[in-house]
Amino acid sequence: MSGHSEDDLVSVLRRILSGDAPGVFLGPGDDAALVEMGPHLGILTVDMMVEDVHFDRRLVSPHDLGYKAVAVNVSDVAAMGGSPRYGLVALAIPADLPASWVVELYGGIREGADAYAMAVVGGDTSRAERIVVSVTVTGEVSRGAAVTRSGASPGDRIVVTGALGASAAGLRLATAPPAEVAALVSTDWGRDLVASHTRPVARVGEGQALASAGATAMIDVSDGLAMDLGRLCRESGVGVRLSLASLPVAPGVREVADAFRLDALAIALGGGEDYELLATLPEDAVEPAAERLEDRFATALTQIGVITEGPDLVAVGADGERQLEPLGWDHFAG
Amino acid sequence: MSGHSEDDLVSVLRRILSGDAPGVFLGPGDDAALVEMGPHLGILTVDMMVEDVHFDRRLVSPHDLGYKAVAVNVSDVAAMGGSPRYGLVALAIPADLPASWVVELYGGIREGADAYAMAVVGGDTSRAERIVVSVTVTGEVSRGAAVTRSGASPGDRIVVTGALGASAAGLRLATAPPAEVAALVSTDWGRDLVASHTRPVARVGEGQALASAGATAMIDVSDGLAMDLGRLCRESGVGVRLSLASLPVAPGVREVADAFRLDALAIALGGGEDYELLATLPEDAVEPAAERLEDRFATALTQIGVITEGPDLVAVGADGERQLEPLGWDHFAG
Repeated sequence: MSGHSEDDLVSVLRRILSGDAPGVFLGPGDDAALVEMGPHLGILTVDMMVEDVHFDRRLVSPHDLGYKAVAVNVSDVAAMGGSPRYGLVALAIPADLPASWVVELYGGIREGADAYAMAVVGGDTSRAERIVVSVTVTGEVSRGAAVTRSGASPGDRIVVTGALGASAAGLRLATAPPAEVAALVSTDWGRDLVASHTRPVARVGEGQALASAGATAMIDVSDGLAMDLGRLCRESGVGVRLSLASLPVAPGVREVADAFRLDALAIALGGGEDYELLATLPEDAVEPAAERLEDRFATALTQIGVITEGPDLVAVGADGERQLEPLGWDHFAG
Repeated sequence: MSGHSEDDLVSVLRRILSGDAPGVFLGPGDDAALVEMGPHLGILTVDMMVEDVHFDRRLVSPHDLGYKAVAVNVSDVAAMGGSPRYGLVALAIPADLPASWVVELYGGIREGADAYAMAVVGGDTSRAERIVVSVTVTGEVSRGAAVTRSGASPGDRIVVTGALGASAAGLRLATAPPAEVAALVSTDWGRDLVASHTRPVARVGEGQALASAGATAMIDVSDGLAMDLGRLCRESGVGVRLSLASLPVAPGVREVADAFRLDALAIALGGGEDYELLATLPEDAVEPAAERLEDRFATALTQIGVITEGPDLVAVGADGERQLEPLGWDHFAG
């Protein structure tokens, strides 16, 4: 960004982000944004993406990175049963990063915000040796409609939206030497797997439908099913019997697993970044909820287990039962 | 943070941040926080502090850094005439950083939040090679009471709270070899200067008093008076005649300037990080506003110039007039 002052950059970014949005009294460019908050409960969440920890600048386009930085936050709002409203972007960039990279990043942020009917209303820009993108999203949810991680009861069924393992398998395809995976990437499911990693979808409508269908607890699958299910159970003070045969493994994950001599089930359990919703529902609410998600969003809802008194987390497979290890993406694990 | 999982760390941080706070339905630990927003306009702001850009880990205590990360955001809320309510902390840390450092940082964040009657309701933790602390603050302001940067009119008087240059002079003292500045640092004003840098005060009450006194525009002095005054004038489409003789230079700044062969006025104009409020007021509102700030907060309010049709930014000194250069802390300038 040599030769560009902070004010110059902010001025460019304001133009990318500008546009009338409901409820925005004052957008980017002042000390702070002024927004209409509405009568509902506010939802607040933040996610930070760090170069060489969460992404590799050589492997992801700035546009996709911006889109994803929005989507992962929206997914947290979706997991509360809410709707996103406003976003803030704090960005740190190296001095030698081309201005075009930042402009493309903001293009992706803008597209992500538009996709979820959100307005990006402010931010902060700074220098750093490695790129850091920290996005804050505020949302709202009606009083009484919010779903936390802590409400699951024994007997509740565990359900998950969509399919698992796609993002982790897509990351494998995206980071392998192109010659090795050309045949896989050229398939429809190969392209879908890569897109699942680079452009994840936040299940906003599905989250609200699950909330109104009576979800007792909900979390988004960001760090892997096993780890996030473990968190839900710990916060609810319950255990689980997870049926491994029921796990919806995304199309192509088995082929990628075979190609890399990995276990497809391990990818589905621990891959992370799926951004599917994992929820608990009373037994009689599962069927109506599944129908509603299929009808409204063409999204599958799969029952994958049952909540127990606990505290054990048990995975039931063809070869018997075992403790479910909370393996997955841990930002501090070595 | 070797040997600590993200969940372990989050669990420790939750205990530091916990405490009943008005309006917090669900604090740290879920996908997102749930908060009461109230009927007023929402204020949203974020500031990112990057190691070796904004701070040097060897020179600042993690406690002070945490406190400051909150205060600089609260200052942005104050500059809108609002009150802070909730905070989110996104933190990236190197793998070898002691856990005690993070715990102390959160202690400072907690103290800063308590000082401004805010609740820290969530966040995100990640790895990075250099420490990054990104704090988001939400606040509120009554409809019609918000003060932006863009409302100044020709004839309005420019006022500034407190005194200028203290933080920059304090930084000089804090970073110089101790033997060189021992005599300066041991004075009352020397300690005050260092404290101005490490523990800045956000002028929340003063901002609200200025808003109700009829402030037409307001900005906090974060990047230096000259630069922030330039921003206010540009957003308002006006110019300014700044009286250099009127600038309230903080006690000790002249002594520090002499010791380092610097110009005290340049420090006051371009030092940055003062977090004083710079506002414009109609002429007849200055005296009542100054009395109110003195009575309620024991904070000085000094008239330092007058808004003109512009577009020139003119500094009037003993040696005549000159263009005011918008020099100050630019996060991208070399």
